[in-house]
Amino acid sequence: MARIAVVAGDGIGPEVVAQARKVLDAVLPNVEATEYDLGAARWHRTGEVLPDSVLAELSGHDAILLGAVGDPTVPPGVLERGLLLKLRFAFDQYVNLRPSRLWPGVAGPLGNVKPGEVDLVVVREGTEGLYAGAGGSLHRDTPAEVATEESLNTRHGVERVIRDAFARADRRERRKVTLVHKTNVLTHAGSLWARTFDAVAAEHPDIATEYQHVDAAAMFLVTQPQRYDVVVTDNLFGDILTDIAAAVTGGIGLAASGCINPEGAYPSMFEPVHGSAPDIAGQGIADPVAAVLSAALLLEQLGHPEAAARVNAAVAAELASRVPGVTLRTEEVGDRLAAHAVA
Amino acid sequence: MARIAVVAGDGIGPEVVAQARKVLDAVLPNVEATEYDLGAARWHRTGEVLPDSVLAELSGHDAILLGAVGDPTVPPGVLERGLLLKLRFAFDQYVNLRPSRLWPGVAGPLGNVKPGEVDLVVVREGTEGLYAGAGGSLHRDTPAEVATEESLNTRHGVERVIRDAFARADRRERRKVTLVHKTNVLTHAGSLWARTFDAVAAEHPDIATEYQHVDAAAMFLVTQPQRYDVVVTDNLFGDILTDIAAAVTGGIGLAASGCINPEGAYPSMFEPVHGSAPDIAGQGIADPVAAVLSAALLLEQLGHPEAAARVNAAVAAELASRVPGVTLRTEEVGDRLAAHAVA
Ligand SMILES: CC(C)[C@H](C(=O)O)[C@@H](O)C(=O)O
Ligand SMILES: CC(C)[C@H](C(=O)O)[C@@H](O)C(=O)O
Repeated sequence: MARIAVVAGDGIGPEVVAQARKVLDAVLPNVEATEYDLGAARWHRTGEVLPDSVLAELSGHDAILLGAVGDPTVPPGVLERGLLLKLRFAFDQYVNLRPSRLWPGVAGPLGNVKPGEVDLVVVREGTEGLYAGAGGSLHRDTPAEVATEESLNTRHGVERVIRDAFARADRRERRKVTLVHKTNVLTHAGSLWARTFDAVAAEHPDIATEYQHVDAAAMFLVTQPQRYDVVVTDNLFGDILTDIAAAVTGGIGLAASGCINPEGAYPSMFEPVHGSAPDIAGQGIADPVAAVLSAALLLEQLGHPEAAARVNAAVAAELASRVPGVTLRTEEVGDRLAAHAVA
Repeated sequence: MARIAVVAGDGIGPEVVAQARKVLDAVLPNVEATEYDLGAARWHRTGEVLPDSVLAELSGHDAILLGAVGDPTVPPGVLERGLLLKLRFAFDQYVNLRPSRLWPGVAGPLGNVKPGEVDLVVVREGTEGLYAGAGGSLHRDTPAEVATEESLNTRHGVERVIRDAFARADRRERRKVTLVHKTNVLTHAGSLWARTFDAVAAEHPDIATEYQHVDAAAMFLVTQPQRYDVVVTDNLFGDILTDIAAAVTGGIGLAASGCINPEGAYPSMFEPVHGSAPDIAGQGIADPVAAVLSAALLLEQLGHPEAAARVNAAVAAELASRVPGVTLRTEEVGDRLAAHAVA
């Protein structure tokens, strides 16, 4: 039995999560799902972001399925730092996994890239770097104000995520890992990343490697996304690069992600990359594919690769059958995906 | 008379700079150019990166025209920190200006974007942020290693570059400034940027403004680059975003940049965004357009807007006349551009 905590969240979160659960239930018997009310709505109602008691309850689950949290009415940082990042850090989710495929049937924005040609995964570090929350400010609101943000990187943190990237490349066909950083400017952190990468690479002589500066990688993701297999990078670079990768493969409406603690010491968390999209919330027109693909990542992490494969196949069929210009209905897409995944 | 210091540099640097000088000489009488030998070649020969005496000499010029420096044989950071960034910081070049236009005749990678539709300029902060060089490491080469990089942001530094962005928007047709940061994670620096932006915006009620997180901006630069006019952002975000902007407008072969000290207290520096491209160096096939467009930025900065306009018109004609698949010759392009610019 899989014990899943569900955080549907705000905006389109509940709509897309409902479809992901539908699909999960279709392919996996005995899912026990518990709903947790977190996000902008709860914050507005109670002032609470993530009570310790809820954090403790969440930690007893096998995985967390999250829709989307946030709302323009919540000050920046409150839910990000207090909820999303808090979970990533508290549950030591050091692998932020973001696959990007240009699925057949999906018209990406790039004229020269054909469906099927792009199939990459970004292994983004999830617990260090500029996300550590090490910053401050002095003389606020005066002409003398100074504000700092510090990127913290440890050999421990860098090595484990690089190891994960190589392990993933080992299971893939093309067997290539690209390290992305900015070693020519961020010389201290860059050197740690580069030396650690080289050390781990030496243990994998059969895996091809390359290094790119983040600005070059951002460019090549637009001009030659086909060249990537596994990309490993730091927290902030990964944030930016995965949105570019999503953009060139049809948009964040299709992009899934997992915040993973590979050892399973804590629950991993799976969520679509898109936000709560308040502009289309409640209309039943949000695309649930990203949430459903996130559920497939969840299945893989919990040791159900066949169920995951069936969900991915259902998504492939769904996307291949879409007719441009026809507005989709969230529910109907969920029904089709669930039906296809069990067939 | 304009006194220009020329740093041709490595690889294709000298080839493209020769064309930029040809064009400069054609449109501006009395350019006095002095060559400075800096870059990978000098470092290999002498171990010197930027001697103080050269820095002092450079400071006596009206502007610096730079080709490209660097070579895979030089360790990362040596020329970047020791030469390029040293100049940006020593000469207080706080406006790193990077225009991107999809010129008629240029086939960009985006299927749904037509030439002429993209015309944006990124005003990247050039003297602060993660480029300040405030970082270090401890327990190097042990399992306990920790490496830090610190982003330093001052009200002084943030305000002056935001003011410059608004001043530029004021001179443009669409009159819109987009602030890009990551206020939801980098809450201290993000708040400083956002508050300063709002304060300056309040002085310009006739200029439209918007805010985007850097990940969203990276995505929108791919899906809707038409939406941007002036973008103002921090040093590292600007580094990444300008490479995306270059990619969607035909590549860094066409991308110009200026590292500008707007007050003229120090010389400003103009350089193509591309690197030294050792793979094609010496073959006479590098595209000099980025270097020539950088020379146009130089002309504007030195108070010669008409000469700059003539260079831009020459580039427009050149690009519109290009036949796909025909290999260009660096020299010939330079000749055509110079001839067109005086005609
Ligand atoms: C919401 C924000 C904190 C988050 C991040 O920056 O990691 C988001 O952009 C993401 O990529 O998951
Ligand atoms: C070479 C490097 C230091 C530089 C930067 O990061 O600013 C380059 O990428 C650029 O954009 O001019």
